[in-house]
Amino acid sequence: METIVMAKEKIVLAYSGGLDTSVAIAWLMNKGYDVIACCIDVGEGLDLEAIQQKAAAIGAWKSVVIDAKRDFAEQFVLPALQVHAMYEQKYPLVSALSRPLIVQKLVGVAKEYGATAIAHGCTGKGNDQVRFEAGIHALAPEMKIEDPIRDWHWSREEEIQYAKDNNIPVPITKASPYSIDQNLWGRANECGILEDPWVAAPEDAYERTTPIEETPDQPTVMEITFKEGVPTALDGKEMPLDQLIMKLDKVAGENGIGRIDHVENRLVGIKSREIYECPAATVLLAAHKDMEDLTQEREVAHFKPTIELKMNELIYNGLWYSPLMKAMVAFLEETQKVVNGVVRVKLFKGNVVCEGRKSANSLYDKNLATYTSADEFDQEAATGFIKLWELPDKVYAQVQEKAQLKKGAATDAH
Amino acid sequence: METIVMAKEKIVLAYSGGLDTSVAIAWLMNKGYDVIACCIDVGEGLDLEAIQQKAAAIGAWKSVVIDAKRDFAEQFVLPALQVHAMYEQKYPLVSALSRPLIVQKLVGVAKEYGATAIAHGCTGKGNDQVRFEAGIHALAPEMKIEDPIRDWHWSREEEIQYAKDNNIPVPITKASPYSIDQNLWGRANECGILEDPWVAAPEDAYERTTPIEETPDQPTVMEITFKEGVPTALDGKEMPLDQLIMKLDKVAGENGIGRIDHVENRLVGIKSREIYECPAATVLLAAHKDMEDLTQEREVAHFKPTIELKMNELIYNGLWYSPLMKAMVAFLEETQKVVNGVVRVKLFKGNVVCEGRKSANSLYDKNLATYTSADEFDQEAATGFIKLWELPDKVYAQVQEKAQLKKGAATDAH
Amino acid sequence: METIVMAKEKIVLAYSGGLDTSVAIAWLMNKGYDVIACCIDVGEGLDLEAIQQKAAAIGAWKSVVIDAKRDFAEQFVLPALQVHAMYEQKYPLVSALSRPLIVQKLVGVAKEYGATAIAHGCTGKGNDQVRFEAGIHALAPEMKIEDPIRDWHWSREEEIQYAKDNNIPVPITKASPYSIDQNLWGRANECGILEDPWVAAPEDAYERTTPIEETPDQPTVMEITFKEGVPTALDGKEMPLDQLIMKLDKVAGENGIGRIDHVENRLVGIKSREIYECPAATVLLAAHKDMEDLTQEREVAHFKPTIELKMNELIYNGLWYSPLMKAMVAFLEETQKVVNGVVRVKLFKGNVVCEGRKSANSLYDKNLATYTSADEFDQEAATGFIKLWELPDKVYAQVQEKAQLKKGAATDAH
Amino acid sequence: METIVMAKEKIVLAYSGGLDTSVAIAWLMNKGYDVIACCIDVGEGLDLEAIQQKAAAIGAWKSVVIDAKRDFAEQFVLPALQVHAMYEQKYPLVSALSRPLIVQKLVGVAKEYGATAIAHGCTGKGNDQVRFEAGIHALAPEMKIEDPIRDWHWSREEEIQYAKDNNIPVPITKASPYSIDQNLWGRANECGILEDPWVAAPEDAYERTTPIEETPDQPTVMEITFKEGVPTALDGKEMPLDQLIMKLDKVAGENGIGRIDHVENRLVGIKSREIYECPAATVLLAAHKDMEDLTQEREVAHFKPTIELKMNELIYNGLWYSPLMKAMVAFLEETQKVVNGVVRVKLFKGNVVCEGRKSANSLYDKNLATYTSADEFDQEAATGFIKLWELPDKVYAQVQEKAQLKKGAATDAH
Repeated sequence: METIVMAKEKIVLAYSGGLDTSVAIAWLMNKGYDVIACCIDVGEGLDLEAIQQKAAAIGAWKSVVIDAKRDFAEQFVLPALQVHAMYEQKYPLVSALSRPLIVQKLVGVAKEYGATAIAHGCTGKGNDQVRFEAGIHALAPEMKIEDPIRDWHWSREEEIQYAKDNNIPVPITKASPYSIDQNLWGRANECGILEDPWVAAPEDAYERTTPIEETPDQPTVMEITFKEGVPTALDGKEMPLDQLIMKLDKVAGENGIGRIDHVENRLVGIKSREIYECPAATVLLAAHKDMEDLTQEREVAHFKPTIELKMNELIYNGLWYSPLMKAMVAFLEETQKVVNGVVRVKLFKGNVVCEGRKSANSLYDKNLATYTSADEFDQEAATGFIKLWELPDKVYAQVQEKAQLKKGAATDAH
Repeated sequence: METIVMAKEKIVLAYSGGLDTSVAIAWLMNKGYDVIACCIDVGEGLDLEAIQQKAAAIGAWKSVVIDAKRDFAEQFVLPALQVHAMYEQKYPLVSALSRPLIVQKLVGVAKEYGATAIAHGCTGKGNDQVRFEAGIHALAPEMKIEDPIRDWHWSREEEIQYAKDNNIPVPITKASPYSIDQNLWGRANECGILEDPWVAAPEDAYERTTPIEETPDQPTVMEITFKEGVPTALDGKEMPLDQLIMKLDKVAGENGIGRIDHVENRLVGIKSREIYECPAATVLLAAHKDMEDLTQEREVAHFKPTIELKMNELIYNGLWYSPLMKAMVAFLEETQKVVNGVVRVKLFKGNVVCEGRKSANSLYDKNLATYTSADEFDQEAATGFIKLWELPDKVYAQVQEKAQLKKGAATDAH
Repeated sequence: METIVMAKEKIVLAYSGGLDTSVAIAWLMNKGYDVIACCIDVGEGLDLEAIQQKAAAIGAWKSVVIDAKRDFAEQFVLPALQVHAMYEQKYPLVSALSRPLIVQKLVGVAKEYGATAIAHGCTGKGNDQVRFEAGIHALAPEMKIEDPIRDWHWSREEEIQYAKDNNIPVPITKASPYSIDQNLWGRANECGILEDPWVAAPEDAYERTTPIEETPDQPTVMEITFKEGVPTALDGKEMPLDQLIMKLDKVAGENGIGRIDHVENRLVGIKSREIYECPAATVLLAAHKDMEDLTQEREVAHFKPTIELKMNELIYNGLWYSPLMKAMVAFLEETQKVVNGVVRVKLFKGNVVCEGRKSANSLYDKNLATYTSADEFDQEAATGFIKLWELPDKVYAQVQEKAQLKKGAATDAH
Repeated sequence: METIVMAKEKIVLAYSGGLDTSVAIAWLMNKGYDVIACCIDVGEGLDLEAIQQKAAAIGAWKSVVIDAKRDFAEQFVLPALQVHAMYEQKYPLVSALSRPLIVQKLVGVAKEYGATAIAHGCTGKGNDQVRFEAGIHALAPEMKIEDPIRDWHWSREEEIQYAKDNNIPVPITKASPYSIDQNLWGRANECGILEDPWVAAPEDAYERTTPIEETPDQPTVMEITFKEGVPTALDGKEMPLDQLIMKLDKVAGENGIGRIDHVENRLVGIKSREIYECPAATVLLAAHKDMEDLTQEREVAHFKPTIELKMNELIYNGLWYSPLMKAMVAFLEETQKVVNGVVRVKLFKGNVVCEGRKSANSLYDKNLATYTSADEFDQEAATGFIKLWELPDKVYAQVQEKAQLKKGAATDAH
């Protein structure tokens, strides 16, 4: 006698190893799915093996772990660096950058195993839910999406009860007051006492940066090499981008660099107060800008911020895989061809000082700039330049003066 | 018998008391002008009385001095602060801000004394010549302009000889290697060793900032009060803006804040390397931005940088008195009405940390932002929001997928 | 014996006199409200008296009608004209402009009668629901909103049955295949055959414009006078803006002007195909731009489109009452001060030709522009201007050439 | 005995066959150059052979003619079309587009023959001198530039005398009152009676367009096919771009399409009044925009105008070969990949009506847009969308209301 077993639908779950997504495995199984737990390392220092086993133990149909640090650095962090991504001029887009990478991997796993759905563990009031769902549908428009946390409406106590009922280990340590997300580009922290924006962030809100009071009394001076806009070496030593970032992050963090305190506008319409730590990002953003100051032609330098503002918004708002993003990246790549050279940075007590820079593509021409006798600048040209430069405003002033006089005369005549 | 004396033409000279403009008095007199020397104090700490006497001694027909610090702070520095003026995201527009103020005063003096011409002492390769001439003609389009330094084509030695021939005192101390301009908003320094952008600026290039190594080991914490975008008080003590800036400048400078090293694009088409010191500006710009982060509605916050970029350009490029500037200021003023409140800053070893902020106009709503049970945010709304937010990109993905398939099918058919 | 009657909650309903909002009166009454039907005339040519009686007959607690044509023209159409509002460079924002006016009136009525809620008759897939709700909450954040049509989920048949059950007159004529909204600034038409963007709009889709084939064979030439950006007179005859628009609309429509066929991006994420007729708008937008070409200084002319794009978006997206809008209007008003003068337009067979223009604020200076001997332009100045204008790109070319050579040499050496 | 002959320096002259550049041949020869006359056909309908012989007859060392219509259309007109280039929203950049093409060819010829200089025949008050010189130096930074017309300072009579003295044929017909430049993308006309902007352009100012009064009474309907943003076929018939433009230009011109009357801002600081005729350009710009309306994703559609504005400025201002232009073109090309399909245009009495459009990349989805029962749009989602969309402004309104109340209370307390 034959038994026909209907195959269950498969779902890929973005799995972190924490309580929420562990409970989600059970919840999705109870909903009838075969769950593929997928943990993606973007540099938060996870114990991938333990996480893999945990998911399997809970009952995941498959437990996958992926070291995506290199991909993350090269495909996501790099364009963000080159476009000087600073949301609202303050925040270097830590979480917003990892989401599209994670989405890319989740969709890849889903296609590999023939899954029809993807699940994430975002809450209903953050930006990440948008980034996950918009990203997934931009890559796989027909994919079904499950969002257990937004769906189950449980209190903390109910969630723990469900965990116990399903034999899911519950952490016994008191939960941190903070909600944290991190990767190799930085660390984001919110909640708890930070919800009062008048209160200074306490030291325990920080982890990757030494308080300035305890930083070394000697500066660290480093040379950062750029090739076509890519940081390729520290002090002349070449290394892959993810390693370069992690190495620099450590040194910069020890010098107290990269703390950011930001009341920001979320895509979902509210303001929230966030504490970020981005040691490497802070250094690299300053150094890359400095390199560009030397090598970008003026019109490029003055228009690029318009692209920067918009690309920031796209990334923050979860539109990494939009067609506008692709066009922007094409613009960006074209501008990076000349960004070659070395910037010497001094890291000291929270400060990044770009104190020297040189480049074969340097547009700084000493013989044009100098006030010494080597001067090659044609000072006569200035007179003609000014005449035409000021002409529209001069004519404007003349005309308004005359128009005013006429008006005055007309008024006097009454 | 009567003697008819033809009145000479009068010219107003922007007079600094230095060698160049002192020689210019004589040069203009020799050209047949009655010279009105006009020295305008914008906070560089001049000995106005001595300067006034010096011009008179050289033979100026009139020697005028004007303390313009208050006007400078309120009419020129303030809008620059509110628009977060940072040329090329680095330089808070020190000299570019004082030029239109000086121009305003020069034109005022010219009208008072019936002068037909104005003279300035700029060289032919800087931005200031443009700012002076464009500014003068925007206010007084018919005014003649003389520019002795650009005109006389002398070497240093020839200038000194001319000075001696005309009984003008020549400074005996060796000339500084640097070319410096300063006012209450900052200090600009170029030339000498700074002309090599790979070389770190030596300590003697700085004057208003203590090297970080020698700054106090205890932070200075201050509260800065804003009313409609105007900084009105330090630690609750109200004071006029020029005094507030100068007071803050001292404290911030002692904490090593405000050094800037910038390879910038001049309007006249060359790159130059500049060292700026802007202690107060650095603090106020950070604090004002922080105040805005709390009080500006999202769309305002996200569009204002577009205005900022353009206004920066206008100011740097000498177009302060252009009609576009007026329209931008109208925009700006409208946005400042809600910028009320207090920012608590910590000044420490080169760092400005905005560590707390509060406002009656705060748009941060704890009950919307919180992850505690006080949460008032409608998390259900997110699902609908995401659906419409991602819709254009989802349709785009579907369509391109289908178009690709069709193309593929067409290709296969061959 | 006394009977205590609990006062019902009052709701203001945006009432058009059509079937949907008539049924809505009954539906809201059945939900327990006292309904204040409020019909606002923005120039669609309504029989206000009949509408007022109809609402009363259905049982409205109060039936209010408001002639808002003047307010609409002066407060909403005017800024749109001055900012050259053309959504996606095609559509002069017909409905998007009337919504904030209607919202303003509804909120006013609600406050007058102490209503706690406002109802509108929008469907769930258009932009108007957003404009109504965002507008209402921007003016009265605590106001409750009802949206019967989105809520009742009825088919056409069910709705008609409900109408009959509640003694609401049902139109016996066959429903038009189109969905139409209009006001004095134009007419919007969608649905039916128009839903296929490859099909040309049939003649019966148009109402306010004569087909070109049937327009007069003689052009109509008119002079339009502007004062500070406001069209104030036609052929020298002054009239209020709403009358000027309606008069011009008739003439322009008779000349076949103002048909627009637009596949546009809705805020709710879909593309829709719309047919607009905007005779007066088309003429006034062309004439106002022409007036600005003559009177706006170059930098204003070149930056204003950036403001225009954003303001277009704000209006289309229902953010009329946002603080960014206020700041933009401040910018706009400042630019309009010089927009004075007369434009002579020729209306002919669908074309608006601005064939002449004059202004006391004209910045066109024949003596600068002419190629005759009256020329006052300093042609020598051009040489200097070009030298500095091209300098950044020239240096760029030199540097890249050199960098390329070096690279080449390095490669050759291998 | 040997005679050593020093080779003369060679110069390439942009030669049109007209009086000015013919005289320039002699003038440059008299200055000691070997002159290479180079005439480049960009579609103005020149008799290249006659021109080539004329230059040789005057004494040019070499006389070169180049048919550059294909290159012009494909490399210069095409990106301008795709970026919807309309300077100041009116003028499709006729001359501004041909200058960089001509520069490219001149530099090519100069390199081929080892010339050290290039000469052009621009006056000192137009934009073209800037475009020529900036273009030449961007491609060949060391190239010397001669500008005879700006240099010789002759009256018309003196020029004619010099022509006679050097045996250069002088045209006997009375000179046209107009100054004209044209190519396959359009025709530009200025001077004469056109210098009064209040006067309508007389019929004799036009050449490529039939007056509407005399156009056919039957419309011409055509289908224009686009492949990746390139117009490739008319009514299904494929042809190279230059031929397509010239064919369309004739038909559109016969239908009275493409007259433009523009008071524009020149780069050299003055306003000038220009009459353009751009029949093909007007049609293609409308059709391409229409194709984009159907195929571009919303964010692309809404940001592209920012790129358009800037690219317009770059082209108009002679910066075609700038690095910013390259980056913009990269952006542009990325956006064109989806611009595939057919637009059906109706050309009739001066009007271009895009009456139908279809595309395999169409993002218009009838099932989302329809109001029929086929509707697939999730109307429930709108409620959630609006809640988050309006949230920032709603909070803003609440806060200002409260802040106002507090202020009021504070004031009342006095």
